[in-house]
This record gives sequence, structure tokens and C-alpha cells, in this order.
Amino acid sequence: MVYVGIDLGGTNIAVGVVSEAGSILAETGAKTLAERPYQAIIRDMADLVKKAVSKARLTLSDVKSIGIGIPGVAGDDGVVFNCTNLGWVNVPLRAEMQKYIQKPIFIDNDANAAALAESVAGVSAGCKSSVFITLGTGVGGGIIINGKPFSGGHGRAGEIGHMTLVPDGVPCTCGRNGCVERYCSATALIRSARQECSNYPDTAILQKAGGSVDRVNAKMVIDAAKEGDASALRVFNSFARYLAMTISTITWFFDPDMIVLGGGISYAGQFLLDAVKPWIPPCQAFEKLPLPRLELATLGNEAGVVGAAMLGKQ
Amino acid sequence: MVYVGIDLGGTNIAVGVVSEAGSILAETGAKTLAERPYQAIIRDMADLVKKAVSKARLTLSDVKSIGIGIPGVAGDDGVVFNCTNLGWVNVPLRAEMQKYIQKPIFIDNDANAAALAESVAGVSAGCKSSVFITLGTGVGGGIIINGKPFSGGHGRAGEIGHMTLVPDGVPCTCGRNGCVERYCSATALIRSARQECSNYPDTAILQKAGGSVDRVNAKMVIDAAKEGDASALRVFNSFARYLAMTISTITWFFDPDMIVLGGGISYAGQFLLDAVKPWIPPCQAFEKLPLPRLELATLGNEAGVVGAAMLGKQ
Repeated sequence: MVYVGIDLGGTNIAVGVVSEAGSILAETGAKTLAERPYQAIIRDMADLVKKAVSKARLTLSDVKSIGIGIPGVAGDDGVVFNCTNLGWVNVPLRAEMQKYIQKPIFIDNDANAAALAESVAGVSAGCKSSVFITLGTGVGGGIIINGKPFSGGHGRAGEIGHMTLVPDGVPCTCGRNGCVERYCSATALIRSARQECSNYPDTAILQKAGGSVDRVNAKMVIDAAKEGDASALRVFNSFARYLAMTISTITWFFDPDMIVLGGGISYAGQFLLDAVKPWIPPCQAFEKLPLPRLELATLGNEAGVVGAAMLGKQ
Repeated sequence: MVYVGIDLGGTNIAVGVVSEAGSILAETGAKTLAERPYQAIIRDMADLVKKAVSKARLTLSDVKSIGIGIPGVAGDDGVVFNCTNLGWVNVPLRAEMQKYIQKPIFIDNDANAAALAESVAGVSAGCKSSVFITLGTGVGGGIIINGKPFSGGHGRAGEIGHMTLVPDGVPCTCGRNGCVERYCSATALIRSARQECSNYPDTAILQKAGGSVDRVNAKMVIDAAKEGDASALRVFNSFARYLAMTISTITWFFDPDMIVLGGGISYAGQFLLDAVKPWIPPCQAFEKLPLPRLELATLGNEAGVVGAAMLGKQ
């Protein structure tokens, strides 16, 4: 038997047929075109499932279940409570999908799915507990306990981007202040870099952006920092320090076996780990206890589809 | 069958015989006299167990297991890794105890034990997940998932007092800065109140302390705040706001069914809840999701013994 995973994003829908062990056997995808009614998007998702299964030279009878990772929150009843990027509120995703394909359907947050993928087929495989942090446009996360995603009492667990990092800090899109996302996302890195470019116009960041602060992206900042540019290092090290505080808070609250860094910023690789680790000092009362291992995600873009598929394996 | 619980503190040892349902059938206790060698303390603990069992008109053959809550961290091997208040490092607690009583012995952090007690016989009974926060001289905590304490990968989970609350904030005894314990403990409340007394010597706090700032304690601050004293309200509301930020961070990371407030400060009762709740605003992206229920612990001092006993019921 195989599992189908759907990674539903605001821009793209990716669908994959996945083995028991978490390998992708066949893949397909399409644009989400999120402005359409949800019924049309879900019909496309069903068509893509059939296409992917046939690409794998299998039939629907070989499929054990379908898992869907969404950029939002769903209830146990298969209804998507809230999915900001798609403008979905109370969308009966499971029921609508089962109009086209009569299979068990599992739905979870996309960051939970990515966390699960790493714990099945990636860097945190074999860990009893792990926390996955996605460092992208925003900051998300997922908690895995004994091989299962932990979604909390109301589907909100792992919303690391909205933990309070700085009391009375930078205003967040969520209406509160000082959220992790305002300090540890690519957006935050870019915001700091643009400020730095205004103050130090000779920075390599600005050269990489062709002299236009509007073109600065996270990769330019990371590349300039790797080359030793002083401005880029200031920006990147400040980012790393805030990330380290977040990791430290997760460590004292939850103490997982491993904390995994994923998302666009994680492509900075070992350079990111080297910048973060010195800012996580041991606590003297527990100084001889090992800290959770801090590692980079290994599955990249595949994590969304693999994790969604693995939701059905739990 | 019954369970014996031992609440081992830096000052007192409390021992209770506890029923399946979490009721105390008989109790006894003694001073810890922590400066003694650990062997003497553990021998006393064994004697107290026998005394409590006989007080309950039972024999050791009626006892299923013995649980010990310690103010520190123990490994699966029954060795106490670190227990600051007792000066214990690598103490073979289980092995030493079994020299006197041959029963299964379970050891966990005292805050984890209190959290477990509330989830078996207290306010969080029936919750799938709960987080217990002790607001005492320090700040501790325990995480319960599906009726079991979650200690993390290295025994450190639930160390809420050492989550980073204020970047570069007040120095902590742990060697780091801005830990929750420096803002949300009785110690922190008293520190703020003393400062307030210096600035506003006509405050009711100082009257209650007989004019001596050195005598100010948490109860005086809470009582004065309840009476409407402006200084006490300023101090208490600032405390409540920091506690709310901590609760908020736990909510977005872990989203338990319930967050339970225990420890000395929780005796402020509904007044505490009323002060904290307005500072936990919903996040707009999830504004219709219910927040975790915020409740006061109900077992008081009994939680230590009951929870320790229930460690053996898992």
C-alpha cells in the first residue's frame, strides 16, 4: 500500500505518492489559483491525486489514505477552521474531497506535516520528541511526540512564530507585539538588512541587490555574511541571537531530543548553526544536562508532500 | 492496592498513602535536615513510608509502588542528576531506597508530580493535555500529555522558570538573563514591591510590613492590591502582565487544553486570574480558536504527595 500526500499552498498544490518508508514514488502539481471558490480548488486536488497515482503506475485501490497539509488549522471533523493565505474559513475539506475519492483523509497544518516528514524520513528519524522550526517568509513549526504530530488542544500547537519573544516589541500582523516571526523570519532579516543598507551604503548586501534596497532578499544577506561583510554579519548575528533565544525558550519548556531548522533560511546551512549555537548558553542549574540536538532539515521541499502522506500512517 | 508518595523538599519530607483515585489515606512527615549525608535522609524517607503505611492500617504488601517528587532532575536509572536545594549530585536514590523497601520506585521532578496530581485528582482531571505553573519562591512547571508527565529528552521539560521572557533582562541565578523566574515568582513580586515602597512610602504594603521593607512578603502585596492600594496594584498588574506573556508563549507553542496556576501566589485566587486574563489577547489569525482554559490549582500542598504517588500508576 502507498500513501498520497498533498501540500496545499497559497501558490502551488503539490501531490505525491509516497511509500511506507517515506520515499516519493511519483509527483505532480498545479497552481492553486487561490482566488477561486474552494470547490474548484478541491476538485483540482482530487484530479491531481488520480494523476499522481497513475504516474506511479498504481490505482486508487493501492492507496491507503490521503493526507493534506494546509497553511492553517483544521478540526478533527475535517473542516478547515482558518486558512489565511487561501481565504478559507470553515471549509469542509474532507467532505468535499470525499465526493471525488472515497479514502480516509487526514488534514493537518503544513508545518506539522513537514515536522512529521523529518521524523519519519529525515534528520529527526528515531527521535522520541522533536520540534521543527520553519524559517521562511513567516515562522512556523511542528511538534512531534513519539512519532505523531502534537496539535494541542485547539490545533494551535507549534505556532512558534507567535510566541512572544520581545515584550512590547515590533508590532505583528496578528495584532500583538514582539512575536518570534517579527525577529526570526526571512521578512525580519530583510527588514534589518534594508535598514543596515541605509546606514552603511557600502555594504556588500547592497552591491548584490544592484544598489536597490527593494531588491534585497535573504539569500543576499546570507551570502554577504558568509563573505565576511561587516553589515551583513551584524544583521545575521542579530537574527541568530533572537533565534537562539527562541530555541532556548523551547528547550526549557519542552526539552525535545532534537530541534530541526527548516525553511528558506535553513539553506544557510552550517553557517546558520554556527551563528546560533554560541547564543544558547547552558543554564547553570542544569549545566551538565545535554541540550537538545540542533540540526538542519534534510528533506527540503519534499517535506510537505511526504509529511502530508505520512499523516495517514499514524 | 495503594500508592505511597514522597514529597522531598529542601526543608520538609512529606509522605502519604494514596488511593487509586488520588485521595490521601494517611500522612506523615519530618524535617529534611538537608545538610546530612544523603544516606541518612533516604533512610528517614524509608522509615516515614513504613510509618505512613502503618498509620493507614495497611502493610507494605498493600503498596504497589513508591513515587518520589524531588526538587531536581533524575534519570531513568533512578539516579538524581542534580538537586540544588539538597546539594545532591548523582545520588543513587532508587538503589539506596530499595535497600530498605523492595518496591518499584518512581522518581520525577516535584513540579511534574504536582502537575500529575492535578490531572488525576484536581482541576485538570480529564484534560488530554495540561501545563502546570508553580508560582512560588521560584517558578516551576510540569507538562501532562494523555495523563502522563512529559519530562522531555533530558529531564528538563517544564522548566518554565528558565524560559527567556525578556531579552537582555534581569540577571538570573542560572547565569543567563531575563528568565521567567525573575518576573513571575514571589521573589520577583517582593523585589518590585520593595522598590515601590521606596518610591511611595505611604503604600499600604509598607503599613502591612510594619514600616519595614525587609518584612514585605507576597501576601502583603496581594492583600494591599485587593484593597485597592495604587502601589500594590501597579506591582501586581505588572507581575500579571509578565505572567500573561509567559502563558501566551506556552499557548502558541503548546496549546494545552488547560493551564493551571499553583504555588503560593495562586492563593490570590480569582483576583490573580482576573488580573492575568486581559493581558492574553487573541492572535488575529486564530481569533476564533478558543484559548487554553486558565484555572487555579485545587489540591494545594497535597499535590506534591498525591502526584508523587500517582507516578507509579502510569
